[in-house]
Amino acid sequence: MTWPFPADDSEDAAIAREAQMWAPYTQAVRDLIDASVRTAVDEDEIRAATTQIEEIVARLRKEQLPDTLGMSNRPAGKRRPWGNPAIGVRNPMAPLLEVRADPSGRIESDFHCGAAYEGPPGLVHGGVVSLLLDQVLGHAVGAGGRPGMTGTLTIVYRQGTPLGDLRIEAWIDREEGVKTWAKGHVIGPNGVTAEAEGVFILPRWVRDKMAAAEPVPGLRIFE
Amino acid sequence: MTWPFPADDSEDAAIAREAQMWAPYTQAVRDLIDASVRTAVDEDEIRAATTQIEEIVARLRKEQLPDTLGMSNRPAGKRRPWGNPAIGVRNPMAPLLEVRADPSGRIESDFHCGAAYEGPPGLVHGGVVSLLLDQVLGHAVGAGGRPGMTGTLTIVYRQGTPLGDLRIEAWIDREEGVKTWAKGHVIGPNGVTAEAEGVFILPRWVRDKMAAAEPVPGLRIFE
Repeated sequence: MTWPFPADDSEDAAIAREAQMWAPYTQAVRDLIDASVRTAVDEDEIRAATTQIEEIVARLRKEQLPDTLGMSNRPAGKRRPWGNPAIGVRNPMAPLLEVRADPSGRIESDFHCGAAYEGPPGLVHGGVVSLLLDQVLGHAVGAGGRPGMTGTLTIVYRQGTPLGDLRIEAWIDREEGVKTWAKGHVIGPNGVTAEAEGVFILPRWVRDKMAAAEPVPGLRIFE
Repeated sequence: MTWPFPADDSEDAAIAREAQMWAPYTQAVRDLIDASVRTAVDEDEIRAATTQIEEIVARLRKEQLPDTLGMSNRPAGKRRPWGNPAIGVRNPMAPLLEVRADPSGRIESDFHCGAAYEGPPGLVHGGVVSLLLDQVLGHAVGAGGRPGMTGTLTIVYRQGTPLGDLRIEAWIDREEGVKTWAKGHVIGPNGVTAEAEGVFILPRWVRDKMAAAEPVPGLRIFE
């Protein structure tokens, strides 16, 4: 078997193939999460499913990465944020499967939030809205060559965000020194449901490399 | 089999028993999510697990609730937010298993964020931090008799939040008309990692009942 690949000599084609292998697995677990909050089968079925899932977990745990996925992938020139709970191809919690930059540099993502993301009845949990906005604002600053950790995040909720098909758009608003301001919003069938502004701080290692006019590996960290 | 119980005549003991039945199932799926981002077994094992998980999903889907869990439970006097992605006993994504009010009216929750909640290497995803703070601030206003939908949420990130054992504390800061301001923070091994302020808006149905001096069912919605 050819994976996990050592982080330092991964090639694009091999990474793409590995992602392709994970996608159906992750979708199966994502479907299981959805089924968990929607099933009405009887108690015996739930107990039987519990036993089977515990068996699968035991088999998956027979060989484990020595560290978290983020720590394991860190040495790589090209980051693979596969464990990310908003976008990771190996994280079944992630509802955002694709995030793209349009030609003008804006970021957008179309996605689906099903029953497992419900807060108030019929609506996406406000905290899930903030999770996804934080992620996509992070893409905006990364795509703009100003990656960073979130310093401050403000969400204004305009109306409830209905479960179902949604879109997030984000863009860089302005920058000053080590700070970059990004804005974005969630759009549902009835228009904008929530607006976000985030202040992102350039990490020291990026500042150091910029000061030394060195290339910054993984600058466009969310490709 | 005795569940799902009709929402309107559920009794406390029956609800507690139902929750008890769900807990081990949900933990198994939560373990599966964790194993998904940490396993290093080979590709054949992943494919075999995929097939088995798809079979479990198919069995769980044989009988499904007619609507989401939140919509299904809505008529109940006592809300059961079991599908909630931050605290739901039926939602495997939820890391907050217990939220309690201390005698002074403050809210606190001790919880664990494992590898599946990772954003930057070794750290909790900033959006997950905001999700959990939104939830616990919501408990604070609910426990104070001023439940509401989040109007504005501001998170200030002071330092990275390390994966592992964490605590969130929250309290009501002030109230004015239909608005209630709640504050809170996440505490890690090195102190406060993120601070939150939220403005929560009393929903119309609560205002109407308060105006009519009627009891508000589910006012303490997060018990």
